[in-house]
Amino acid sequence: MSDLSATYKRLLETQKRIATLGSVEGTLEWDERTYMPKEGAPHRAEQRALLAGLRHEWSTALEIGEMLTELEQSEYGGHKLSPEAVNIREWRHDYDRLVKLPKELVEELTRTATHAQDAWIKARASRQFSLFRPWLEKTITLKRREANYLGYDDEPYDALLDAFEPGAKTREIAVVLSQLRDHLVPILKAIAGSSLKPDVSILQREFPPAAQEAFGRQVAAAIGYNFNCGRLDTTTHPFCSGLGPSDTRITTRYDEHFLNPALFGVIHEAGHGIYDQNLPREHWGTPAGDPVSLGIHESQSRLWENMVGRSRAFWEHWYPQAQKAFPALKGVKLDDFYFAVNEVKPSFIRVEADEVTYNLHILLRFELERAILNGDLTAADVPEAWNEKFHAYFGLKVPDDATGCLQDIHWSSGYIGYFPTYSLGNLNAAQFFDQARADLGDLEEMFRRGEFQPLRKWLTDKIHSQGRRYHPEHLMEVVTGKPLEATAMVNYLKRKFGKLYQVHFTV
Amino acid sequence: MSDLSATYKRLLETQKRIATLGSVEGTLEWDERTYMPKEGAPHRAEQRALLAGLRHEWSTALEIGEMLTELEQSEYGGHKLSPEAVNIREWRHDYDRLVKLPKELVEELTRTATHAQDAWIKARASRQFSLFRPWLEKTITLKRREANYLGYDDEPYDALLDAFEPGAKTREIAVVLSQLRDHLVPILKAIAGSSLKPDVSILQREFPPAAQEAFGRQVAAAIGYNFNCGRLDTTTHPFCSGLGPSDTRITTRYDEHFLNPALFGVIHEAGHGIYDQNLPREHWGTPAGDPVSLGIHESQSRLWENMVGRSRAFWEHWYPQAQKAFPALKGVKLDDFYFAVNEVKPSFIRVEADEVTYNLHILLRFELERAILNGDLTAADVPEAWNEKFHAYFGLKVPDDATGCLQDIHWSSGYIGYFPTYSLGNLNAAQFFDQARADLGDLEEMFRRGEFQPLRKWLTDKIHSQGRRYHPEHLMEVVTGKPLEATAMVNYLKRKFGKLYQVHFTV
Repeated sequence: MSDLSATYKRLLETQKRIATLGSVEGTLEWDERTYMPKEGAPHRAEQRALLAGLRHEWSTALEIGEMLTELEQSEYGGHKLSPEAVNIREWRHDYDRLVKLPKELVEELTRTATHAQDAWIKARASRQFSLFRPWLEKTITLKRREANYLGYDDEPYDALLDAFEPGAKTREIAVVLSQLRDHLVPILKAIAGSSLKPDVSILQREFPPAAQEAFGRQVAAAIGYNFNCGRLDTTTHPFCSGLGPSDTRITTRYDEHFLNPALFGVIHEAGHGIYDQNLPREHWGTPAGDPVSLGIHESQSRLWENMVGRSRAFWEHWYPQAQKAFPALKGVKLDDFYFAVNEVKPSFIRVEADEVTYNLHILLRFELERAILNGDLTAADVPEAWNEKFHAYFGLKVPDDATGCLQDIHWSSGYIGYFPTYSLGNLNAAQFFDQARADLGDLEEMFRRGEFQPLRKWLTDKIHSQGRRYHPEHLMEVVTGKPLEATAMVNYLKRKFGKLYQVHFTV
Repeated sequence: MSDLSATYKRLLETQKRIATLGSVEGTLEWDERTYMPKEGAPHRAEQRALLAGLRHEWSTALEIGEMLTELEQSEYGGHKLSPEAVNIREWRHDYDRLVKLPKELVEELTRTATHAQDAWIKARASRQFSLFRPWLEKTITLKRREANYLGYDDEPYDALLDAFEPGAKTREIAVVLSQLRDHLVPILKAIAGSSLKPDVSILQREFPPAAQEAFGRQVAAAIGYNFNCGRLDTTTHPFCSGLGPSDTRITTRYDEHFLNPALFGVIHEAGHGIYDQNLPREHWGTPAGDPVSLGIHESQSRLWENMVGRSRAFWEHWYPQAQKAFPALKGVKLDDFYFAVNEVKPSFIRVEADEVTYNLHILLRFELERAILNGDLTAADVPEAWNEKFHAYFGLKVPDDATGCLQDIHWSSGYIGYFPTYSLGNLNAAQFFDQARADLGDLEEMFRRGEFQPLRKWLTDKIHSQGRRYHPEHLMEVVTGKPLEATAMVNYLKRKFGKLYQVHFTV
């Protein structure tokens, strides 16, 4: 037993060293997206390729496999949900996955991502897909190679999806998303038929960025984001990035003439940040201290952004302060503001989409990615395919690629297979939120009083503090007593928007 | 020959990989000093220790020594000043130095520096030396161990000095600095006796930071700092940091009620930045593409800050624009402004010291550091020793440690042996500047016309583009035809300040 304990300790040190190296890569990526000078990209690509290659080398060392086998054979770690047992189980999952990938592919993927992001920024700014196309082609080629190395039962998409949502299956996601679509289409139709429309012009007045930032910081801190272990910066594509056990940074973007992007963007990213900041710090660098999956991560950001941040109760508390912060809201009634921030209307940009249409944006991307990986769609054909599908789902004609297929950073980062986790996040959020209400009582009444910490603590207790103890689908069962279903989400949307648009839905 | 060429290529790749890893450490350090959240320090220490240890391991690999020996025995590289020959010579110098240091010491020094900087920031802010003392003690212990591992002929200070100024000797520096002091004291006395005094209150009016930043950026760009490969940020302790071949960042600090710190600080750091940005990019990551020494680096910043930025000709060009940028300068005459920015007066803060007293600040630090390393002074005794010496040199009583021994970041970064390079920088700058005038003609006339690129190009040609081809003392001889002397500096001061204060000095 003392031999095994020495083996575990050695493996733990090895893994923490790997995680520390990974956190350096995270720091480089944060810098790349925030403050790196224009011409810094080529060298940054070399830096990141070096570290990614090195980390891959360390992560796939034969010795790790040997230590894992030794520990597994004697079922070291006691109870199978102990941190030690969880670590061994998840290290094995990650190790078996990583050893399939050659180091040169990992380096090339990393190097390509930096160049591709650089090209994507330029392509998006100048609305020229052609600038990004060669990099998208290269990314697709590399990701298909990655999928082939990893192997899959049904289709290559499975292999990539697993990196973001362990254990998820493409076919199952396709079923969930199409069921969701079958619910959303009639909801959307009924809303479009309603004679009630919010006056969204009140959100498109003058909102000085400095005031938006100050207000955003206040709200983020109130819901539990800790600025002593974090930052808020400005970037074109907002994100949240964990750089270490006490260093989780978020970003947003300010539109002087539109309140929504930064206001709800900051709450969204703070939701991610709160998850990261409340992971068990003593297990940092090991699965017991890691987030479960992107679908669970996204549930935290969407829960705070939508179920909390777009609720009437939330604004009953915050609206007087918002009116002080923004003279443009003077004389605007709370109900009109609340209706405006919840407008449902097909639009071009995913990150600004309302809660009803959002998942259709994801479905579109998911279908395109799947076609790309199956070899049914080439990089060159992406703009046309995007625009056609967009017209079919939203009835809108995409004016240019910056507003279409160039809007998201993901593909330039090599994140193919990532998008579905956003929809999983929405579904997870609704189901968790129902359970929180069942456990904590009248959440809305708490929000009205400006009390957000009971909810935050519940989330920490049930989700954040668990690390990777449970797989996503298992965590859902443990927390809510049932598997993930679309029901909570659909009912939430029907209730909220039925009331706002005065449309009757059967819940 | 083809075998040797393969060996050289292999060594080159190895060294570039090491340099790339070093540039990652540089990025982490930049982040640490600019944007890292308060509580991020302990993990940052781990990240940096990991990379420093790794880089040390790579840099001291036996294989490097073997490849060097192979290349040296056949005098690979042709002409001894060819990039290849220079690289082999300098790689050998660095290798022989590094192999003497155990990896654990390198890791510990790095880890300690992050913690010590964190403690230093807190100590300085709260004016409590006691918060920093244990870290200074630890740093001293580690640096003395480092000096012992490295070895030295005369005294431990030599061993540390060599890291910043290759080949320099403590005893020689002591001679130069005391000779300089012997010149400075009578100059200072004569100036103090002059009835002329500038009205410095004109620099202590309202100077909004945003206007200072805009003006600073304009000036930095005009003298040749490239913002596409750089940035300007705000930090307590200004610095310049090279993060890669096209990524050199500078920082400054703004005082709303004092124009000097940011104005001359930006020019100073831009001077460092211009050196880095004009190193031969094709040799990045090798000695042929590296700066020579800190004394040469500092000559670039001081030359731009003082010989250019505090010259009357410079302001003949810039003053009208400064008056537009800063309403506080309305009605202030150019001559009064020029005199005010050149006030000579003993003061507490090194980085804000005038050109005459500056080197006395260095002498004080040099003497304390030497005593510390020789074991004649302990960390606990530093504040008292500082204050006594300060009184002796400047006739001023230090009001608190933040204004005294806590003012500089260097000791917290483990930079002991660094300070003398500032004085070398001043001497180098004056001697280079004389030569530039001899080669280019009337520099002042160019400055009056806003032409700074002839000087910048001369510096690039003579100094920047040389990388580490020559050692510092040799470079001086190649560029100016004579060894480094205090003469140019002393004559420059006598001419400039004799005229300003209407005092007669024999030049």
